[in-house]
Amino acid sequence: MLTFAQFGAGRIGAIHAANLAASGDAQLRYVVDVDAKAARRLADTHGARVADARTVFADPEIDAVIIASSTDTHADLAIAAAKAGKAIFCEKPIDLSLKRVDACLAAIKKARVPMFVGFNRRFDPSFRALRDRLATGEIGEVEQVIISSRDPGLPPLAYLKVAGGQFRDMTIHDFDMARWLLGEEPVEVYATGSCLVDPAVARLGDIDSAMVVMRTASGRLCHINNSRRASYGYDQRIEVHGSLGRLMAGNHTPTSVELADKNAVSRDKPLYFFLERYAEAYRIELAAFVAALAKGKTMPVTAEDGRQALVLAEAALKSINTGRPVKVAAIAGRRA
Amino acid sequence: MLTFAQFGAGRIGAIHAANLAASGDAQLRYVVDVDAKAARRLADTHGARVADARTVFADPEIDAVIIASSTDTHADLAIAAAKAGKAIFCEKPIDLSLKRVDACLAAIKKARVPMFVGFNRRFDPSFRALRDRLATGEIGEVEQVIISSRDPGLPPLAYLKVAGGQFRDMTIHDFDMARWLLGEEPVEVYATGSCLVDPAVARLGDIDSAMVVMRTASGRLCHINNSRRASYGYDQRIEVHGSLGRLMAGNHTPTSVELADKNAVSRDKPLYFFLERYAEAYRIELAAFVAALAKGKTMPVTAEDGRQALVLAEAALKSINTGRPVKVAAIAGRRA
Amino acid sequence: MLTFAQFGAGRIGAIHAANLAASGDAQLRYVVDVDAKAARRLADTHGARVADARTVFADPEIDAVIIASSTDTHADLAIAAAKAGKAIFCEKPIDLSLKRVDACLAAIKKARVPMFVGFNRRFDPSFRALRDRLATGEIGEVEQVIISSRDPGLPPLAYLKVAGGQFRDMTIHDFDMARWLLGEEPVEVYATGSCLVDPAVARLGDIDSAMVVMRTASGRLCHINNSRRASYGYDQRIEVHGSLGRLMAGNHTPTSVELADKNAVSRDKPLYFFLERYAEAYRIELAAFVAALAKGKTMPVTAEDGRQALVLAEAALKSINTGRPVKVAAIAGRRA
Amino acid sequence: MLTFAQFGAGRIGAIHAANLAASGDAQLRYVVDVDAKAARRLADTHGARVADARTVFADPEIDAVIIASSTDTHADLAIAAAKAGKAIFCEKPIDLSLKRVDACLAAIKKARVPMFVGFNRRFDPSFRALRDRLATGEIGEVEQVIISSRDPGLPPLAYLKVAGGQFRDMTIHDFDMARWLLGEEPVEVYATGSCLVDPAVARLGDIDSAMVVMRTASGRLCHINNSRRASYGYDQRIEVHGSLGRLMAGNHTPTSVELADKNAVSRDKPLYFFLERYAEAYRIELAAFVAALAKGKTMPVTAEDGRQALVLAEAALKSINTGRPVKVAAIAGRRA
Repeated sequence: MLTFAQFGAGRIGAIHAANLAASGDAQLRYVVDVDAKAARRLADTHGARVADARTVFADPEIDAVIIASSTDTHADLAIAAAKAGKAIFCEKPIDLSLKRVDACLAAIKKARVPMFVGFNRRFDPSFRALRDRLATGEIGEVEQVIISSRDPGLPPLAYLKVAGGQFRDMTIHDFDMARWLLGEEPVEVYATGSCLVDPAVARLGDIDSAMVVMRTASGRLCHINNSRRASYGYDQRIEVHGSLGRLMAGNHTPTSVELADKNAVSRDKPLYFFLERYAEAYRIELAAFVAALAKGKTMPVTAEDGRQALVLAEAALKSINTGRPVKVAAIAGRRA
Repeated sequence: MLTFAQFGAGRIGAIHAANLAASGDAQLRYVVDVDAKAARRLADTHGARVADARTVFADPEIDAVIIASSTDTHADLAIAAAKAGKAIFCEKPIDLSLKRVDACLAAIKKARVPMFVGFNRRFDPSFRALRDRLATGEIGEVEQVIISSRDPGLPPLAYLKVAGGQFRDMTIHDFDMARWLLGEEPVEVYATGSCLVDPAVARLGDIDSAMVVMRTASGRLCHINNSRRASYGYDQRIEVHGSLGRLMAGNHTPTSVELADKNAVSRDKPLYFFLERYAEAYRIELAAFVAALAKGKTMPVTAEDGRQALVLAEAALKSINTGRPVKVAAIAGRRA
Repeated sequence: MLTFAQFGAGRIGAIHAANLAASGDAQLRYVVDVDAKAARRLADTHGARVADARTVFADPEIDAVIIASSTDTHADLAIAAAKAGKAIFCEKPIDLSLKRVDACLAAIKKARVPMFVGFNRRFDPSFRALRDRLATGEIGEVEQVIISSRDPGLPPLAYLKVAGGQFRDMTIHDFDMARWLLGEEPVEVYATGSCLVDPAVARLGDIDSAMVVMRTASGRLCHINNSRRASYGYDQRIEVHGSLGRLMAGNHTPTSVELADKNAVSRDKPLYFFLERYAEAYRIELAAFVAALAKGKTMPVTAEDGRQALVLAEAALKSINTGRPVKVAAIAGRRA
Repeated sequence: MLTFAQFGAGRIGAIHAANLAASGDAQLRYVVDVDAKAARRLADTHGARVADARTVFADPEIDAVIIASSTDTHADLAIAAAKAGKAIFCEKPIDLSLKRVDACLAAIKKARVPMFVGFNRRFDPSFRALRDRLATGEIGEVEQVIISSRDPGLPPLAYLKVAGGQFRDMTIHDFDMARWLLGEEPVEVYATGSCLVDPAVARLGDIDSAMVVMRTASGRLCHINNSRRASYGYDQRIEVHGSLGRLMAGNHTPTSVELADKNAVSRDKPLYFFLERYAEAYRIELAAFVAALAKGKTMPVTAEDGRQALVLAEAALKSINTGRPVKVAAIAGRRA
């Protein structure tokens, strides 16, 4: 039985804590949050104690920490956890700054602690099945990957102000999926975008609609399209073209009900947003972390994966700012 | 080049005449219709002449007749055509009376002329593909057949008065499909029905909603459901269950367009009615008749098929009237 | 917090116990099973004690019992539970004998304890949504219901020997769905069936393939088709036709992945069997029982529902034995 | 009744001639082809005469010409037809050189003859319905367009040598669709591509796999993906995202048959290639030309449309050659 502490008692924190409890192989000892009430509520639900970071890191019985607090705290907490020898489950992104990410990676490397970055989509049963089938060679060699990833609606502007821009906040998941599916690292990124949903987003210097094209060294191609608004719900689709065929993973729906009436034949809209669509993925993801930890196995998603997705986001940002495709090596190479 | 005469210049007659013209292997010489204007119009369209039946049967150059006039004229025309040695393409049903059908079959047997009964659904590309795949053994032995067959709306009451009741007018197509798909003749028929669409139908002594169950000697089962009203259009689906799997043929739609909006994800309704859904089937059907005639081959649908479908309709009618399942042999055996 | 005892520690018992634990509003105190090992394992998992029936019924703190033991024990346990004043969650069927079901109903009536019969399909999210939408009048008045219900494979013959025949064992779920969807009680049942999957089933005097047609007093029609074998998995579909349209609920699949290759465009088979397809339904069902109990509300499925489904199964059995449709009143009327 | 001459008696020529015959409003007088046999065969089929270009242009009764000969002859024939005062239906592309296209446009402008460029996809019923629904505002303002356009297999290398490269030969249809759907002209084009299907294509200096991103002045975005190989057939899909929803048009299939077996639930592959998928589009396209001509209306696709699609192809070519996005104005502006 592993012993955990969790930073962050918000929406996603509540999910991780519940999944940890359901995993059966771990118990939550501490909950840490600047919002004392939220911390108390979550701690009570799971028979845990409210604590501060110092207590967590000082407790030798803590095996691992879940970092589900606000983005700007991730890197510091991860570094502190590494120094304290705790295994780390960190929500994406590690940090919005590549420099700080690198500092974090250096710390975990030095401390030799395992770190898992929460790219939940890798654990979605449909995406996972698609990738497993790629691995069997069912469609031959991968040639093109097309990722449609569209949120149901714009987050609050207050959130957008600190989110690091669409590529680092939203597309970062798609960059990770691209790496995971292409079977090769992208070497060049072209990105363009617009503000079509709300002019207020433009005033923040951000975009709400984006298209990206990437290529790998051997010429595999990847397209990502994003929007902050899809009136029909969370649009999360993947299409992979290979030499022998095409694999697609479509949206998930609440029910299989179909209506035929004088207007049309209609079915359910996709599940509303990430909490609904990826409920199962969050569960499997945490179980995978716990299992890897318990068995001393390599983490299925690593801090390096977290860094590489950010590198692609940075490249996209540079591309949109310069109006040109950007070599990934030029960004990744900043690494000390 | 075969030379044809056609009886009936109405809606279905116009379709057959156009398909005959498009077949390229036949020419239409005469059009016969009690409605002189309609006959004139159709004859003009296809470079044919308006004539009476006597002229048609007396013309030794006429190879074949298409009987697409009103149902009550089918049997007399077919018998006269047989006596004149003309090949016959006859719209379903041959007649509403089994006795008259038998007289007709006797006439064509005596005259040794080929007769084709217009069970158009056998030529629908989807149904045809389904049956061809049954024949390959793709789903093993046929065990159950389920036929959903629902019209978009009630025909005029004037039509219903002379149509012979739902089983002989509408379900007869489904009885033919059942025979065609089961691979064995039904030996028992149970039918029940209601008047749910319009009470006026009940006042005619008819029903507008029906369910039928049939079984074959080896125990294969078949269900048919019918309604005279489907607000979403013509519902024409087949489902066959075999020892190794299931084959289904679904509805056809005008386009492949899909809308996702705040309400639902919706697609086209099925094609409106038989003229739309079976346009291709009518074309292939007539071409099949012309080809069989030109090459002296057996007709792909025979007068005997027309009789057997009527036998099942009669059995269904007796079942609904007596409230019990009916042995098909008891009906079919009336045959002289 | 309600206190529960559970009879039966087998496959379905394990599911109910886990769902009870997850409900958060109830705790399991006792597990009873003739298989001591199974009882021990389940009790340990949920922090409960192994006990015998006497202990359960004598403990005044037990609020409710879950009866998930073998079918032949249901009625006796339910009667004993009623006498002891315990609320009852009973797996279907209450009993294979209508007489014993009536004895059971009399006992719970006398004891005034609530009884819930486990017709899990009523809690499947797709079927539930379909029914909720019927209730809104979205497709007008219900006219026809079509239920396709096919198991992936034949159960062991040893099970079939004691299962009471296909109608009481398998179709009983469909009879309940029919009642739930038709909005009126069936008044007449016609059933036919065959042994197409395995001749050994026929030697047990049973069938493995069935078709049923039922009608209600106002003329609504219902068709059920069953098979003990569907090579592609558990086929559980519902189709309801109303005056304004059609509602269907289709199968559920493990993923949304689609493959296009040189052969076809293919998707997942349906979920394998009831444990997979109805996992969510079992969870919601038990939560509904707990919630109704906690709030003193009417049970969403009652012992009377259990009886009525059995009445239809008996009618189907009499129909297949006599070769005629059977009036439901003639069966139901046996009730004292 | 309009009188036509046709240049080109190959595969696409045969289709246009048959559609012309079926239109009922035009007759084909001359067929011109360097392959005398092919010309003879097609002329015989339609009761036309074999002739040379001089005869066609000298015959004052010829109202219009269909140019369906090899690409390198289009511009000269169109210019000659313009000078002779004949209306022009020209297969795409007008020419591979923008300069020669401009010469052609100048000629038709001077001669004031109508010219129609054969962008057949605009007449596909699904794409047409999608665009009509865009026009109703059903999904609000267009924001993103995604075009998947993949051929079943590589054409012969001999064809590729003279085809002008993938963008001018294949993507040109997609550029036209993009213009047609975006509601605004693209102002910038980024293109990248690879040779993944066959290295022989690379040796020709061409690509076989491509991804394009375009943007309009107001920031609407468009993605196109292409491959010369789709093992499952012709993949022709469109997705348009608007402020209120998403419209998609999917592939068409030969039948609606679905198989469920122990492996999967599978449906037909898409129709094989353009002759199958766009058979209906070719028919409607030619009828639209004939109708516009007969009624003296504006052509639904103009020579200017032909030019603009080529401008985008040129921009894409420049983009792939320079590795940068290209301003459309810089290409279009070459126009004299």
